[in-house]
Amino acid sequence: MTPGPRPHVVIVGAGFGGINATKELMDGPFEITLIDRDNYHGFWPLLYQVATAGLGPEDIAHPVRGMFGERSNVHVRLGTVSDVDLDRQLVQVADEADLAYDYLILAAGSSTSDFGIPGVDDYAFPLKTLPDAVRLRNHVLSCFERADACPELVDSGLLTFVLAGGGPTGVELSGALTELIGQNLARDFPHLDVTKSSVVLVEMLDHLLGGFAPSSQAHALETLRAKGVDVRLNTAISALDADHVTFKDGSSVATMTTVWTAGIRANPLADMLDVAKGKGGAIEVTKELTLPGHPEVFVIGDLAATTDRHGKPLPQVAQVAIQGARHVGRTIKRRTTGRPTKPFRYHSHGMMATIGRRAAVAEIPGGLKLRGTLGWLSWLAVHLVFLVGFRNRIVVLVNWSWNYLTWDRAARVILKEDSTTPSGQHRA
Amino acid sequence: MTPGPRPHVVIVGAGFGGINATKELMDGPFEITLIDRDNYHGFWPLLYQVATAGLGPEDIAHPVRGMFGERSNVHVRLGTVSDVDLDRQLVQVADEADLAYDYLILAAGSSTSDFGIPGVDDYAFPLKTLPDAVRLRNHVLSCFERADACPELVDSGLLTFVLAGGGPTGVELSGALTELIGQNLARDFPHLDVTKSSVVLVEMLDHLLGGFAPSSQAHALETLRAKGVDVRLNTAISALDADHVTFKDGSSVATMTTVWTAGIRANPLADMLDVAKGKGGAIEVTKELTLPGHPEVFVIGDLAATTDRHGKPLPQVAQVAIQGARHVGRTIKRRTTGRPTKPFRYHSHGMMATIGRRAAVAEIPGGLKLRGTLGWLSWLAVHLVFLVGFRNRIVVLVNWSWNYLTWDRAARVILKEDSTTPSGQHRA
Repeated sequence: MTPGPRPHVVIVGAGFGGINATKELMDGPFEITLIDRDNYHGFWPLLYQVATAGLGPEDIAHPVRGMFGERSNVHVRLGTVSDVDLDRQLVQVADEADLAYDYLILAAGSSTSDFGIPGVDDYAFPLKTLPDAVRLRNHVLSCFERADACPELVDSGLLTFVLAGGGPTGVELSGALTELIGQNLARDFPHLDVTKSSVVLVEMLDHLLGGFAPSSQAHALETLRAKGVDVRLNTAISALDADHVTFKDGSSVATMTTVWTAGIRANPLADMLDVAKGKGGAIEVTKELTLPGHPEVFVIGDLAATTDRHGKPLPQVAQVAIQGARHVGRTIKRRTTGRPTKPFRYHSHGMMATIGRRAAVAEIPGGLKLRGTLGWLSWLAVHLVFLVGFRNRIVVLVNWSWNYLTWDRAARVILKEDSTTPSGQHRA
Repeated sequence: MTPGPRPHVVIVGAGFGGINATKELMDGPFEITLIDRDNYHGFWPLLYQVATAGLGPEDIAHPVRGMFGERSNVHVRLGTVSDVDLDRQLVQVADEADLAYDYLILAAGSSTSDFGIPGVDDYAFPLKTLPDAVRLRNHVLSCFERADACPELVDSGLLTFVLAGGGPTGVELSGALTELIGQNLARDFPHLDVTKSSVVLVEMLDHLLGGFAPSSQAHALETLRAKGVDVRLNTAISALDADHVTFKDGSSVATMTTVWTAGIRANPLADMLDVAKGKGGAIEVTKELTLPGHPEVFVIGDLAATTDRHGKPLPQVAQVAIQGARHVGRTIKRRTTGRPTKPFRYHSHGMMATIGRRAAVAEIPGGLKLRGTLGWLSWLAVHLVFLVGFRNRIVVLVNWSWNYLTWDRAARVILKEDSTTPSGQHRA
């Protein structure tokens, strides 16, 4: 897999970090192997829209091979990395021959953490992958179908949706879910008292959107409450059960749906490596984003414990992964041509979160803050521009226009995972 | 569930028959309950495009409640009919209270039949539902991923796709699959010898597209062969296994994928009823599409054994279900107002099947036959017009334009059914 003298770069993960590192390097004298457990790049900032029936899963997924298929020096591999041998410079992919690397870029992202809270693993809905989003959509729609058939179950919390975590995902999901219920499901279920449904957003701290300016946090809180979201600040979850969630103060809420967006930790890949870890299990890196003692191994994005000049951890957002990827790509190119390398410096392009129809908060570097319709439009524009794949952009734009003009969310489809046809099919 | 004196019409199935019967009756003095096992109406003529990554599943699905949500006399129910008591006029829905009806319209459609051939149930991929199409798409893409990792498996039939049945579904799928492989996957997998892949279309009779004119059948055969499809006429499958398919003459083909479009039989609902059945288990009906001896029970679409004036069975196509639905709706309205009813008469609007990019056969009543680009354009137009849901039409049009202009099929996404996140979640 290392043909001739061209250095072999192995990149683990086809998220924002992995695809941008590949793009940065693919025109250079490198053989690149890009490994991901899925055959697509998912645009996770729009995942909550799949979960709330505004978009279909294929709309925010782009086949990885479609990006690099015509580059003969890029080898895309579907697989899960089962081990990394840092000393022998080998990556082990499950069921396959080991891959020897000259440079390794680890960009495997993050996964959900249950913070050790009992019941989260068993009962919470994660929202980190496309199947997660489809499963949550199916579940929410099925709850309404069940409630329509047996309205007495509503008192048992069938239409109570608890979202744990007041970060951008929790805020965006709570706004979208409230609109799905109030605008679409209320019309779909005219014989059901949808006002008995509730969306509860639970946050441990005394503010939403940690990392945003206090005025944006306050605006998000106010907007969500005005929309009808039951926002509970300073509230910690102590346990989850099949039919209720219990808080630290001993109170509880009957619910059959808790979405867990509270905890993020580094991808399990980090646990395989015997290296220093920071907060959330993220890997400690040098100023060049390399593994200490292993200048040929780079770690970027959510997997890396990176900080800004003041030692403050960088946020776990796409821009950090993208900029890290470009920096690492340029570092490798500089090294192969004997040029000096530079430390990584993150330039914030701002932060934004949408709260619902014509409602968002956006903070642009320099202190400018946008809210309401203007913030929302800038959110739409930025996400359309960064969405990978021209077809996806058109289809998402069509869907957003449709949703906006008609108040419809057309993907209200319960797509069963198991076929109704008997089949003991073999799988590839 | 029968509020007041308004007759209660129970409609089983939200396919072409069920939704058109509902539309025909919803403005009249009726309470209507529409039951389906899914919460969406699927536009099955485009199912093969989901299986071949040209469209996403949500593009051809329309939420049933979205069609009738604002009609207070239409009650949509998600559920499976587990029994019908014809004498007491009750429909039993699994896990729920029985529904009493004044009129019953059975429009549950058809399912796959294995013709008693060993291995079909265990190893064949059906293509009747959206999950079927997604599973087939995942499987085909996964076969190429596996072949890319282990090219020696290609000789064991990993890239050989056998389609059983030369009807419209088999013809359309074989054309689309050949294009997916030759145009998209060949580019996606530059390191794989895609010419070793093959699509084998197996038909028991000596012609494809039974029911079409001989010249259309010959044209389809010629076009598919020119595209590279290995069409085998007069070939019957005798058994299926995990890694090969065996034919009646004793020969066999190594394959890990057999798609079963050969056998159709009435929905299992027909088996629950102790009534006379015709070909493929379809229910024998009177000229008014009622069950003999039960003028209050109507059977339409694939579930009914209907014939034309010459006693020839009507084809199992959308138009038969749609016209039957309208006729039955009008019959019920005529009866409630004491007007005389009329026998059902099917008016063929023609038949069409697409063979691939700018290739199709279309037969219009009066003897006009369209082929090639013209046939293809008329196929596109008819399917766009009949596709339910305005948003779906726009999104499908955008996708088709994209596919045509770029030769791309953007939904090449392996959407895993099981999440990578551990979860023993309860389901609604």
